[in-house]
Amino acid sequence: MSLVRVHNFSISLDGFGAGEPQSLETPFGHAGQRLHGWMMATRFWDPTTGGAGVDDVFAERHSIGIGAEIMGANKFGPPGWQDDADWRGWWGPNPPFHTPTYVLTHRPRPSLEMEGGTTFHFLDASPAEALAVATEAAGDLDVRLGGGATTIREFLTAGLVDHLHLVQVPIVLGRGTRLWDGLEALEDTYDVEAVSSPSGVVHLTLTRRAATSA
Amino acid sequence: MSLVRVHNFSISLDGFGAGEPQSLETPFGHAGQRLHGWMMATRFWDPTTGGAGVDDVFAERHSIGIGAEIMGANKFGPPGWQDDADWRGWWGPNPPFHTPTYVLTHRPRPSLEMEGGTTFHFLDASPAEALAVATEAAGDLDVRLGGGATTIREFLTAGLVDHLHLVQVPIVLGRGTRLWDGLEALEDTYDVEAVSSPSGVVHLTLTRRAATSA
Repeated sequence: MSLVRVHNFSISLDGFGAGEPQSLETPFGHAGQRLHGWMMATRFWDPTTGGAGVDDVFAERHSIGIGAEIMGANKFGPPGWQDDADWRGWWGPNPPFHTPTYVLTHRPRPSLEMEGGTTFHFLDASPAEALAVATEAAGDLDVRLGGGATTIREFLTAGLVDHLHLVQVPIVLGRGTRLWDGLEALEDTYDVEAVSSPSGVVHLTLTRRAATSA
Repeated sequence: MSLVRVHNFSISLDGFGAGEPQSLETPFGHAGQRLHGWMMATRFWDPTTGGAGVDDVFAERHSIGIGAEIMGANKFGPPGWQDDADWRGWWGPNPPFHTPTYVLTHRPRPSLEMEGGTTFHFLDASPAEALAVATEAAGDLDVRLGGGATTIREFLTAGLVDHLHLVQVPIVLGRGTRLWDGLEALEDTYDVEAVSSPSGVVHLTLTRRAATSA
């Protein structure tokens, strides 16, 4: 069965997945690159200089067994990208998705075929509707939910996430987009594990518990 | 030099130090005892059945080298305890402090001498004023800041905390008293370390960096 997985989603100690304000120059606001420094130091990110320790072990799972991605509008571009007909995402001609990639937006546009197997499709759809489309496209493979925090929260609230890998970075952002709001008692349906890394981050995994028979 | 230390302060994944509503029956609100289960399973808490692993190693530092404690009013009793002239704290005749213990409240009352070396003193004072009194009482020893979350935040904001040991418990409370609010960029003045425990909690230490010479 196809799973819905989140990988490498970085948050601050106080639970923010991005700072503010988000813009073309500062995609993560005042967080800068600090939420993702751990990842840039892995072999997953840089095969030449990156490390191959626990951070890399977690990071590379991003790529394994994924047949489609879903992301929120705020991941695809800075606020207002819908007004720019030429906007093709942050990632240049060969984005790191390499599968059909569904962007949730209330203002859909024609699909964009990029290099390397990524095609961006734009959907004005609920989480469940988008997931049905992405699951169909993924075939036997899993669907990655790419973020941001608001989108992950919406899918969690709708009960649609099977596996959630968070990376808690030792900074306090104080403001931005918070992941945890409205998720009381998540531990009732997920097994939670934590592994600290020598880099200073903590890898948290939340794995949906198999339903017990009545 | 006498330090100000916080030990064994438990928070949820979403950063709450207590749930709600707090009352005589539910001192930690809907969190129940879930924030402190890790501690109750240590030798520090129960010398007969408790474990002696990493959770115990951290927990027992609570008692070492402390000459006084400061706590907020909400730690001393349920909301409204100031109206009960007979309230003597949650901890019975022999509280686990064993030093002068300063309770911050806008409605001070006469000091209470308990068994085992604990004397509760009641202060209507700013964090800096209370710390001056507690430091004097502690002599060569350190001052423990006992919480709750609001009190810790106030002392952090005032720049008065040298060492902060937090224990992140794998539950999502969703509501209650949040530790992290208003602490942006705490990592600029504190070294942050994280250690995950087999019990599922993560021990976070924030240690104030020595001032660098200009």
